[in-house]
Amino acid sequence: MRTTIVSEVLHRNGLQAVPIATDALTFGAWMERHQAKAQALITRFVPQHHPLVPQLHEAMHYAAAMGGKRVRPLLVWAAGDCVQADPQALDRAACAVELVHAYSLVHDDLPCMDDDVLRRGQPTTHVRFGEALALLAGDALQALAYEVLTPDDGLAPALQARLCALLARASGADGMAGGQTLDIFATGGAVSGDDLMHMHSRKTGALLKASVLMGAACGGVNATHQAQTFTALQTYGEVIGLAFQVVDDILDVTADSATLGKTPGKDAQQNKSTYVSALGLDAARALAHTLRDKAQAALDALPPAQRAASQRLRELADLIVLREH
Amino acid sequence: MRTTIVSEVLHRNGLQAVPIATDALTFGAWMERHQAKAQALITRFVPQHHPLVPQLHEAMHYAAAMGGKRVRPLLVWAAGDCVQADPQALDRAACAVELVHAYSLVHDDLPCMDDDVLRRGQPTTHVRFGEALALLAGDALQALAYEVLTPDDGLAPALQARLCALLARASGADGMAGGQTLDIFATGGAVSGDDLMHMHSRKTGALLKASVLMGAACGGVNATHQAQTFTALQTYGEVIGLAFQVVDDILDVTADSATLGKTPGKDAQQNKSTYVSALGLDAARALAHTLRDKAQAALDALPPAQRAASQRLRELADLIVLREH
Repeated sequence: MRTTIVSEVLHRNGLQAVPIATDALTFGAWMERHQAKAQALITRFVPQHHPLVPQLHEAMHYAAAMGGKRVRPLLVWAAGDCVQADPQALDRAACAVELVHAYSLVHDDLPCMDDDVLRRGQPTTHVRFGEALALLAGDALQALAYEVLTPDDGLAPALQARLCALLARASGADGMAGGQTLDIFATGGAVSGDDLMHMHSRKTGALLKASVLMGAACGGVNATHQAQTFTALQTYGEVIGLAFQVVDDILDVTADSATLGKTPGKDAQQNKSTYVSALGLDAARALAHTLRDKAQAALDALPPAQRAASQRLRELADLIVLREH
Repeated sequence: MRTTIVSEVLHRNGLQAVPIATDALTFGAWMERHQAKAQALITRFVPQHHPLVPQLHEAMHYAAAMGGKRVRPLLVWAAGDCVQADPQALDRAACAVELVHAYSLVHDDLPCMDDDVLRRGQPTTHVRFGEALALLAGDALQALAYEVLTPDDGLAPALQARLCALLARASGADGMAGGQTLDIFATGGAVSGDDLMHMHSRKTGALLKASVLMGAACGGVNATHQAQTFTALQTYGEVIGLAFQVVDDILDVTADSATLGKTPGKDAQQNKSTYVSALGLDAARALAHTLRDKAQAALDALPPAQRAASQRLRELADLIVLREH
């Protein structure tokens, strides 16, 4: 069995990278280890206690550390696994993308947006800390993502710049924030399947795709260097991003609050256009499975050595489609 | 008279850099040209019309283009002038720092923060576009700043990384967002002069200092390379940041709405701690002048050639203290 080396942080005395063989792990064990690593990285970069602005740091930590599946960091690490990426760079990329995801949830939950009170089974950040502090915590988490990507040393400056570029383009008007805007204006109106795909490719898809490409970038892969690998991973990232949202829409209809960790049925209540409202539940389920197959097929286009190392990405495609929350 | 060459964009056909002699210009003319250049850069990077997400782009453009003195871009260009910085890099740094400033104003004006309806004589972004879109426009402007700093070509990757690092550290919990948090928690309570200085060094000062250091970075100046220059410009940036806030507090008391372009008297109304409330008006005015002198004295520590090229920074110190809005 191939032995992949990834850094590991589950050591008592901190975060130094310790190589472990992960191929021997089941997917569940691999995921748990890397979710724990994501948690450790967040605790390192977003400490709960900070003497100078304690309220802000507490709110930032609450928002970032409250859990979740850490799908985006897992995608960074899994993509990095394919391309023998620098473990330190991967850790920073994984953390940065999760910080951007965390900030987007905080702002998305605000009363002027989705006005949600429950997230991952906990009170949302503005319910716990007030709106002003939630707003600022979100803003500061976004800035922190770029701090994490630009350390004084330990990460090649050209890679720092590349990671910042990927993250910024996925987060802004052409990515996540643009998709959220389309979502707002779609609420209440009839939206076609194509429009939905267009909106979600930005709202959710852009950051998921960026996670894959940031992992690839940590192994030196971009559009001109190892183009075949880049194209395969880009396609995987695009398709998996779409699948994620389709399943999100399905779960909003089928899951209960305890399983989902947030208020279900919000989409219908807010008259939101979803894949379920556009296609019906059965067709949405079929679409999710088709997309999973397409994502896995994209990985078949990787060069042989990388294809052999793409197991975690394949398993993540399964996770994204088969998850229950 | 020494002839400094800076790029210039006031050409019909776009933004290509055209060298002009600027030493012959009065400060007023230099400032006007560079304010126009800031406006042109914003129109380039934040176009008002965009086919895909028109509402978001319109709100982003409104927030970024509505005017203002462009003090931060002016500081970038003036600092770059001292160190013979790359004009293209300076333009991107100047634009990025203004985008972060613009996003902070949009979020600061929201009902859950200062709840202000007037900014630069115009309705604030949320009054004009609604709260949700204002929130997203601010978020997208922050991301756009990092997009502007990380172009595919034309800017050395190491400089891209350095500029992102400076901007992120100045914007986040240790900078602007942290200062805004301290400001919220200071409202209503008695705050000492030291606490005020601590708060403002983050809230306003961090981004103003970063503007100076980003200009310096575009000329290859950092803490280890040209350390004497770095230290002098860093001190200048810190002192000027403080002076800016002291004068802001004075103007909140002394200026009328038409001159100020925003609602005056808000500080007292919200029972905010300001330099005027802490020191009294006369002492605050004396402090502003002392800080102007200190900022200009810091520039005397520059190596001779750079000292000779620091005229615009000296004039900006005057502008910041003597401005009436």
